[in-house]
Amino acid sequence: MSKPVLVVGGGPAGLAAAHSLATVGRECVIVEKEDRLGGTPILSGYAKLVPTGEWAKDAIGGMVDRVENEDNVKIVTSARVTSFDGTPGNFTAQLSNGDSLDVEAAILCSGFSHFDSVNKPEWGFGTFEDVVTTTQVEQMISSGQGVRCPSDGRKPQRVAILLCVGSRDRQIGREWCSKICCTVSANMAMEIREELPDCHVYIYYMDIRTFGLYETKYYWKSQEEFKVKYIKARIAEVTSDGEKLIVKGEDTLVKRPITIPFDMVVHAIGMDPNVDNPEIAETFGIDLESHGYIDVANSYGAMGATSRPGVFVAGSATGPETIDDSIAQGHAAAMAVLSSGKELKSA
Amino acid sequence: MSKPVLVVGGGPAGLAAAHSLATVGRECVIVEKEDRLGGTPILSGYAKLVPTGEWAKDAIGGMVDRVENEDNVKIVTSARVTSFDGTPGNFTAQLSNGDSLDVEAAILCSGFSHFDSVNKPEWGFGTFEDVVTTTQVEQMISSGQGVRCPSDGRKPQRVAILLCVGSRDRQIGREWCSKICCTVSANMAMEIREELPDCHVYIYYMDIRTFGLYETKYYWKSQEEFKVKYIKARIAEVTSDGEKLIVKGEDTLVKRPITIPFDMVVHAIGMDPNVDNPEIAETFGIDLESHGYIDVANSYGAMGATSRPGVFVAGSATGPETIDDSIAQGHAAAMAVLSSGKELKSA
Repeated sequence: MSKPVLVVGGGPAGLAAAHSLATVGRECVIVEKEDRLGGTPILSGYAKLVPTGEWAKDAIGGMVDRVENEDNVKIVTSARVTSFDGTPGNFTAQLSNGDSLDVEAAILCSGFSHFDSVNKPEWGFGTFEDVVTTTQVEQMISSGQGVRCPSDGRKPQRVAILLCVGSRDRQIGREWCSKICCTVSANMAMEIREELPDCHVYIYYMDIRTFGLYETKYYWKSQEEFKVKYIKARIAEVTSDGEKLIVKGEDTLVKRPITIPFDMVVHAIGMDPNVDNPEIAETFGIDLESHGYIDVANSYGAMGATSRPGVFVAGSATGPETIDDSIAQGHAAAMAVLSSGKELKSA
Repeated sequence: MSKPVLVVGGGPAGLAAAHSLATVGRECVIVEKEDRLGGTPILSGYAKLVPTGEWAKDAIGGMVDRVENEDNVKIVTSARVTSFDGTPGNFTAQLSNGDSLDVEAAILCSGFSHFDSVNKPEWGFGTFEDVVTTTQVEQMISSGQGVRCPSDGRKPQRVAILLCVGSRDRQIGREWCSKICCTVSANMAMEIREELPDCHVYIYYMDIRTFGLYETKYYWKSQEEFKVKYIKARIAEVTSDGEKLIVKGEDTLVKRPITIPFDMVVHAIGMDPNVDNPEIAETFGIDLESHGYIDVANSYGAMGATSRPGVFVAGSATGPETIDDSIAQGHAAAMAVLSSGKELKSA
């Protein structure tokens, strides 16, 4: 009888990995540091997901329910892995709750951390109440409250969404692109226009990266059907004239300074490496790549192999990632565990 | 004993799906229309792959070898599926070679077709010998011949790579973004500079979409280490002055016409829906999405479900896709087959 597989993290990737393992009759244990499963889409209160338009609580909530109903999946919440020793097929994990687990392999689905906008102070977050993040707007929508200015609860008439907050920004040590913010922001702009048809929504961008089929479904649709306005700009600062927020910058297409007043400014915050990654790397004896994400080997042999045999990784732990791709990688990493286990036995 | 699973197409997604099924002891049959496995990376002679830098013949060739050595995988080449009847768990596939297969489910890994640059005649392909496609340059590199002007075999001193040829172009009915051309082109520019250090390489773009960690690994690196030059431009035409190719357009950042001579112009060709998709949709009784790719249901319940129960899809058959994500989706679709098979049995 094979030992169970350890899945670290109960977000989209971890839920997919656990479901895969249970499907083929393999036991697994999900260890989640928070007090419930679902990962960022649930814990941060996301609204409708890209690209399906399903509510996060239904889509990811459904994945949670499925895993919770699997006999082969054991769930440990509010716990962390504190040590991980042994060799492939034969690891022992110590947990922060005092438990000890003998496992065959581990799949790290430990996700990312949202960029904290206080690290970009010149763009007004923390200074002005009506400068918010995409996560806050997701929560306004998913709560049913609607998009309102936090300062006084009014419906905004003009909203600016600033892309690349905490992304593509060498000044603050975040050179990577967060991959999905352009598309999420285009989607959010349409949701705002749908709820508040009189509200003008502007998106400030460097490059619009609505890759693949997102191009028509989000970028073109948001402009043509929802009249969202896109401005290619370098933003200097977000200030206030006492009444309105003022976004100052340079329109890089017409090479002129632009100063536009808004009721609400939304930071499209990036995906940082999980703040726990240095600790995770130490505990599991694995390498991080140069930006601080978990380094992943090639995908051709075993999907999601890390630098340590028997330890795999999936989803946004490896870098900025979409939910769909995180799910695919979770399933694939489960397969890599099964495949490597088979090789162990035949060795 | 369960029936085998039909895998249509032996590219990265199909090879991953077949490996997954074989790993858990399930039989499958790969039906490939060409005379060998490997899909576009092998059949089109790709050089080094994004993002690993491994040669396609090693990376994807290794996946082919692995599948060819699996007892559980039957391979049928130079054949197509001509009909597919039945219900989940109980399908019969007729092949063009006269064979008939009883299968539990099907996974369509039927890939994409490269855009044919003759459909963009104003950009010089088909008129000037030294206007080539990214695929041709891949072949120059993978053959060991090196990057040379087809007209006379000389080493080019100035190369222009034009992005979005057959992508983001409503005039020719291709509104989607092909997702990976920006990154592949940045990689190719570096390879050209590596082989020909005196050659100047320019990339003409609308938006640079080196998403996620490709931003630093390709976009920044190509500029900072390899001195590749990026020009945001709207291209009008590619002509010749009898000696050099002339790229005419408008620099959209400085709003001025630009006319630059080159020795070689490379079309970064997009990913069209597989030209066989209408036939595949008819044969398998599945829906295509609006652009002509195979329509895929949400990823939360079953990865790669199509409109017909028991028929799944993975990789670039669903839209422009990277090789890594195609592989992940192939593994994930195999899991979806196993999961749905389990549900069938318990029903």
